Amino acid sequence: MLKVYLSGEIHTDWREQIIEGLKGLDVSFSAPVTDHAASDDCGVAILGDEPNKFWHDHKGAQMNAIRTRKGISDADVVVVRFGEKYKQWNAAFDAGYAAALGKSLIILHQDEHQHALKEVDAAALAVCKEPQQVVDILRYVLTSKLPG
Amino acid sequence: MLKVYLSGEIHTDWREQIIEGLKGLDVSFSAPVTDHAASDDCGVAILGDEPNKFWHDHKGAQMNAIRTRKGISDADVVVVRFGEKYKQWNAAFDAGYAAALGKSLIILHQDEHQHALKEVDAAALAVCKEPQQVVDILRYVLTSKLPG
Amino acid sequence: MLKVYLSGEIHTDWREQIIEGLKGLDVSFSAPVTDHAASDDCGVAILGDEPNKFWHDHKGAQMNAIRTRKGISDADVVVVRFGEKYKQWNAAFDAGYAAALGKSLIILHQDEHQHALKEVDAAALAVCKEPQQVVDILRYVLTSKLPG
Amino acid sequence: MLKVYLSGEIHTDWREQIIEGLKGLDVSFSAPVTDHAASDDCGVAILGDEPNKFWHDHKGAQMNAIRTRKGISDADVVVVRFGEKYKQWNAAFDAGYAAALGKSLIILHQDEHQHALKEVDAAALAVCKEPQQVVDILRYVLTSKLPG
Amino acid sequence: MLKVYLSGEIHTDWREQIIEGLKGLDVSFSAPVTDHAASDDCGVAILGDEPNKFWHDHKGAQMNAIRTRKGISDADVVVVRFGEKYKQWNAAFDAGYAAALGKSLIILHQDEHQHALKEVDAAALAVCKEPQQVVDILRYVLTSKLPG
Amino acid sequence: MLKVYLSGEIHTDWREQIIEGLKGLDVSFSAPVTDHAASDDCGVAILGDEPNKFWHDHKGAQMNAIRTRKGISDADVVVVRFGEKYKQWNAAFDAGYAAALGKSLIILHQDEHQHALKEVDAAALAVCKEPQQVVDILRYVLTSKLPG
Amino acid sequence: MLKVYLSGEIHTDWREQIIEGLKGLDVSFSAPVTDHAASDDCGVAILGDEPNKFWHDHKGAQMNAIRTRKGISDADVVVVRFGEKYKQWNAAFDAGYAAALGKSLIILHQDEHQHALKEVDAAALAVCKEPQQVVDILRYVLTSKLPG
Amino acid sequence: MLKVYLSGEIHTDWREQIIEGLKGLDVSFSAPVTDHAASDDCGVAILGDEPNKFWHDHKGAQMNAIRTRKGISDADVVVVRFGEKYKQWNAAFDAGYAAALGKSLIILHQDEHQHALKEVDAAALAVCKEPQQVVDILRYVLTSKLPG
Repeated sequence: MLKVYLSGEIHTDWREQIIEGLKGLDVSFSAPVTDHAASDDCGVAILGDEPNKFWHDHKGAQMNAIRTRKGISDADVVVVRFGEKYKQWNAAFDAGYAAALGKSLIILHQDEHQHALKEVDAAALAVCKEPQQVVDILRYVLTSKLPG
Repeated sequence: MLKVYLSGEIHTDWREQIIEGLKGLDVSFSAPVTDHAASDDCGVAILGDEPNKFWHDHKGAQMNAIRTRKGISDADVVVVRFGEKYKQWNAAFDAGYAAALGKSLIILHQDEHQHALKEVDAAALAVCKEPQQVVDILRYVLTSKLPG
Repeated sequence: MLKVYLSGEIHTDWREQIIEGLKGLDVSFSAPVTDHAASDDCGVAILGDEPNKFWHDHKGAQMNAIRTRKGISDADVVVVRFGEKYKQWNAAFDAGYAAALGKSLIILHQDEHQHALKEVDAAALAVCKEPQQVVDILRYVLTSKLPG
Repeated sequence: MLKVYLSGEIHTDWREQIIEGLKGLDVSFSAPVTDHAASDDCGVAILGDEPNKFWHDHKGAQMNAIRTRKGISDADVVVVRFGEKYKQWNAAFDAGYAAALGKSLIILHQDEHQHALKEVDAAALAVCKEPQQVVDILRYVLTSKLPG
Repeated sequence: MLKVYLSGEIHTDWREQIIEGLKGLDVSFSAPVTDHAASDDCGVAILGDEPNKFWHDHKGAQMNAIRTRKGISDADVVVVRFGEKYKQWNAAFDAGYAAALGKSLIILHQDEHQHALKEVDAAALAVCKEPQQVVDILRYVLTSKLPG
Repeated sequence: MLKVYLSGEIHTDWREQIIEGLKGLDVSFSAPVTDHAASDDCGVAILGDEPNKFWHDHKGAQMNAIRTRKGISDADVVVVRFGEKYKQWNAAFDAGYAAALGKSLIILHQDEHQHALKEVDAAALAVCKEPQQVVDILRYVLTSKLPG
Repeated sequence: MLKVYLSGEIHTDWREQIIEGLKGLDVSFSAPVTDHAASDDCGVAILGDEPNKFWHDHKGAQMNAIRTRKGISDADVVVVRFGEKYKQWNAAFDAGYAAALGKSLIILHQDEHQHALKEVDAAALAVCKEPQQVVDILRYVLTSKLPG
Repeated sequence: MLKVYLSGEIHTDWREQIIEGLKGLDVSFSAPVTDHAASDDCGVAILGDEPNKFWHDHKGAQMNAIRTRKGISDADVVVVRFGEKYKQWNAAFDAGYAAALGKSLIILHQDEHQHALKEVDAAALAVCKEPQQVVDILRYVLTSKLPG
């Protein structure tokens, strides 16, 4: 079974497209929590309020790391999508983390970010623009079949 | 000897401040190429032109990775500075890479980026606002002496 | 499946609370032998008496280590509870062992031990006071759902 | 050169005794910060005050971890001394951390703690009562000469 | 279960012979994409054309590496066959990759390549001339039964 | 599931006693080929005769290593039995190999070999005289129950 | 200091060109034995004749592996040159070995081998045609200076 | 510098022969304690008497392991000599330990032990009969020069 971790942008349905596109194949998926509000507030919701925003965020980010590290460590392939908005430093951090562990990295982003992402892309085995390309790659890796 | 890698922002003199501030102590420093133009064009300058910007950048980013990986792999401590401008995904990538290798991570950034950097900060052993704080931390780690 | 090792205090039912609280989720648990008498005497009971208390304990502690190391090595998450009594150095030892292996660490203790446990807490991704908080964290990690 | 890290109790001169006793041999030593006040307050002294004692301690403990991890990771032998007072969970944590990294462990404590330290002792290659015994062991390891 | 990766030559049915010969035993197989055309063109077929042959091949080779690395990393035994034709540097590369990961290596080639393959053979636990010998070895490893 | 590798002496039924004694528990076993003749001659039987006894043995020993390494690498616990006869250097080699991989080691031998095996015993978590003691230890590790 | 291993083709002076070109910089070099006759016959010259060519070569190749593995394991950067003649499977083996260890890989070959080396090139951080390009890359990595 | 650990037989001057034979080359040596009496009694001499021979030996063997593990872990090459007498299980244990760490192994023994040592020899890169052969191999590895 090919284990795939889907990191990065959480505001579009790219994960669903990839999962749907690979239905029926020997592949399993994991991902970070994609509920933005839950992801931001999990730390204080469970462990108690923090008046200081830094610690509010710290508690949440460390809690999310339990899930993230498990997902990346278990994965064969880590797909990281950079969306059009936000700093998305956590996505780049995940890419670096996965690269250091020797995971196969697939990066997914539009042309506009090409230059800014060159170091991240340079660590990848494939750089895609569309979720469908990720589907095609993983289908090929699993079945030896090219699209079309 | 404490080996320190200074990653990230290359437009201010923060590296020089840290190196100067720790003069005389048992510490060594390494860093990426900080000449922006050289860093962008090294690939094609040495290996030949590429009409496609993606491969132009790819060649350069991979060449720079020879230096970056050596620096991070050899380091005990990786300091990553996020400046005020640019996407700086390479900085976040380095932070993730260092974290996965179990390096001690010190992050340096202004308050305005606090929320966007929470996952990166959460992997760090210290989060600073000023280069002088990095100096103080490393001096303390090396000598047990606090400032003042 | 998330594999969780429950280390530390053996005189209350905190393990049962956590296991009960996560019933039905994709999680498995392991733990040290929690029968205090068996744990103390296993070495001599199986391998023969020792007149010297040090070797009596040594034989038992090494035998228990077969189980403990397996549990920690296999785990994704190691929860360590410090109770109100006893030295509990084995709990802190397990925490250090898990931290060096890069396991996600959750520490569980009352406020009174806060200062004495600061180095252990500093290596954790979450510090809880109640077993229910561990349940809430692991449920969130597994399902993205916050309590309430 | 044999690299030795001296972890644990910071209120007596046991480190000095060991270092003095091995003068002239091919051995180097490292240790945590042994200035109790500096060790407790380093975090807030450099990075700013925290009203909450937990974060006060957290900042300091993480800063100290930069030094501690470097010392343990570089060491061939980790000596951990448990004194007569305090919880000393950081000492047990260091012992577990060192054990997981496969370091040779020497534990130093009085008889009164024998039963409580059995799991820690069981991971050690030598259990001593006096610093002079540590000196004798390391001298023997370095020179093949027994005392007397 | 014994996991076997079948690397190298893709123009004869040696993989099928081995898989057929071990039918019914507790063994699983993986292999690179053996459709030569798909393997050569996968990169541009999915990610877009490249006028430069180097990048055409680069894109394809990196995409194939996702499958190859997964196969080798998961394997207990890596069998590498060198055929009579072509440079087959990818086969030797896989052998080196597998050797560095500590995989058990079985090399399969005719006598004519003996001298040229001496460094590769020297890293192997068995050097065969016929696929049937690989079958016999793996059957013996799995069942303790010798042929005949 | 606890994975146990049973290394060493192949002339008595100690493996069967252990396997029988643990029937019904969550444990799996692996072992070297215990058919002495097959183990000695496997190399030449499959890969062709060698006039030189050294290479005859070399081919066989390397072929057996495919099975042995898989068994030890996969194991949580490695039991090594030293019998009354023969040099049994392969048993001691397996013990060293397992120790370096951090496996839990149980050594099984009679008193007469005690002094000669002291370095091997010193790396073990338990030293037994009878297979029943191995059964009792593994049952305790799996179920927390002591015999009797 | 940057440690560089120079693997592959031994019939031209490319190693000398690179070493000469980097004179005065903080770099050290290692390489395989480049005396072809010595490299072929070292095994039998020291350990005794073998009538069978396979074992003649096996003894030599394993002896050379002592040097090769040390060189690659110690290196930060592995440069592998493929010449115009011969199978050069040892060069590709070294490249795979280095890649699996996470070394920075620079491949050096003429255009004619481009397609046959695509899997090897795809694992590299730079692909060169001339030794001078390797000099330029390593000088840039060490000094941040581009040629010209 | 090539780091060599000389394990095994302690009753002849083979270590001195090798060290003498390589004088002036870039090589360093380490070895176990070769004073038999000190090696047997170090544990009780420093840590106190044990009435039970098993613990007497255990204390000593664990103390010696501090030196042995350091020597093997730091080594590039581990030479293990099996003499004519004794069980020498510690030598075989060291060989297995070194093999699992991926060290280059050279075994040194007379023909009479050939069959009994086949598994150990099969893990080695060279099998010698005389210390001079070890000298010749290491000189060749260091200088590319063959004897004579």
